[in-house]
Amino acid sequence: MKRAVVLLSGGIDSTTTLAIAIAEGYEAYALSFDYGQRHQIETEAASRLAKLLGTKEHRIAKIDMRIFGGSALTDNIDVPKKRSDVEIGKGIPVTYVPARNTIFLAYALAWAEVIPARDIFLGVNAIDYSGYPDCRPEFIKAFETLANVGTKAGVEGRRFQIHTPLINLSKAEIIRKAVEFGVDLSRTHSCYDPSPEGLACGKCDSCLLRLKGFREAGTTDPIAYVTK
Amino acid sequence: MKRAVVLLSGGIDSTTTLAIAIAEGYEAYALSFDYGQRHQIETEAASRLAKLLGTKEHRIAKIDMRIFGGSALTDNIDVPKKRSDVEIGKGIPVTYVPARNTIFLAYALAWAEVIPARDIFLGVNAIDYSGYPDCRPEFIKAFETLANVGTKAGVEGRRFQIHTPLINLSKAEIIRKAVEFGVDLSRTHSCYDPSPEGLACGKCDSCLLRLKGFREAGTTDPIAYVTK
Repeated sequence: MKRAVVLLSGGIDSTTTLAIAIAEGYEAYALSFDYGQRHQIETEAASRLAKLLGTKEHRIAKIDMRIFGGSALTDNIDVPKKRSDVEIGKGIPVTYVPARNTIFLAYALAWAEVIPARDIFLGVNAIDYSGYPDCRPEFIKAFETLANVGTKAGVEGRRFQIHTPLINLSKAEIIRKAVEFGVDLSRTHSCYDPSPEGLACGKCDSCLLRLKGFREAGTTDPIAYVTK
Repeated sequence: MKRAVVLLSGGIDSTTTLAIAIAEGYEAYALSFDYGQRHQIETEAASRLAKLLGTKEHRIAKIDMRIFGGSALTDNIDVPKKRSDVEIGKGIPVTYVPARNTIFLAYALAWAEVIPARDIFLGVNAIDYSGYPDCRPEFIKAFETLANVGTKAGVEGRRFQIHTPLINLSKAEIIRKAVEFGVDLSRTHSCYDPSPEGLACGKCDSCLLRLKGFREAGTTDPIAYVTK
């Protein structure tokens, strides 16, 4: 059975990506990160979903990205709230975590080399999150090149491939795909700044894009919000 | 003052690279890793040398590479001993750590983005360690491309540069350079498998290459060995 490492945050995108990898016949090795997020809800969601969807293994790598800071998700910077679509579309937001996807993919590559697997799945999309440079096709292509020159397996002829099945989809299209694959979206978590009880804030960019996606997909978001 | 992130393991190569970066006028931000090495001697050596050479800051990122294993340096695989030059020169050794330099450079890039710095120094060399795919110029070039498409700073026009001043030098040439820059080589640590007291084993590939380098440089290695 062919194996794949799937990066899993527990949000809609990575969970749908995991469902796609499994549907394509891969034995899935899910990889999540405990990287000094402001909350552990993200890794809990990932663990739940890894079990629910049926991964072969799920590992959570502890990495300390707080030592560098520089992002609203890892530092003492406020998560912006209630931004308009125009504001969200402009530039690179403070929730950008320096080199995050480079670090995530580097770990995925290390695990893929050991398993061994030659396929890595990543749920980035370049549409709603055009602000993040490490969600663009150029970045994915550059990482694929790196993987093939920088590893023992690559040099010995295994061709690593980074799969990004959602990269050209809008959030609404991703939600439709999730529903089609039977993903239980009530178990996913997207909020950058949840309440102490774990409710989504309904105001950060991630909640706003999620809610907009559900509206455009003509369906209702099953998770609970503080306000929306 | 221009700033640079310098990857520092506490071995001869990375310490000499740090000395070069400082001599070139950079304010040095040294970065080391506690990555489940079999010993902590490496990070202690790095801390000592960072102080001695005069870095602006020294950080040790804790990363768990044991969760993947797959290397004699992170897993229950014996470190090979007493290999001949021919054996050392053949293929990729079991001390290769999957995707290690990709992970190290990803962290260096994250820190460089935050500091901010556009220069990263890495003490790889392609001569004595031709077996490690992530020590070759092709890999460095691929990472530089990745850095410039995958970060906010890169997209906004900061050109990241990965400096590898030792890449074409033999171990003997590096040792001569270290002496020229006044590096106290008695404080460096290279052994893959030191004794509980911290003495170098004198038999692993790293010790053998180090000792050969000193011989070829016509000078004596000042560190203590169990046997040599």
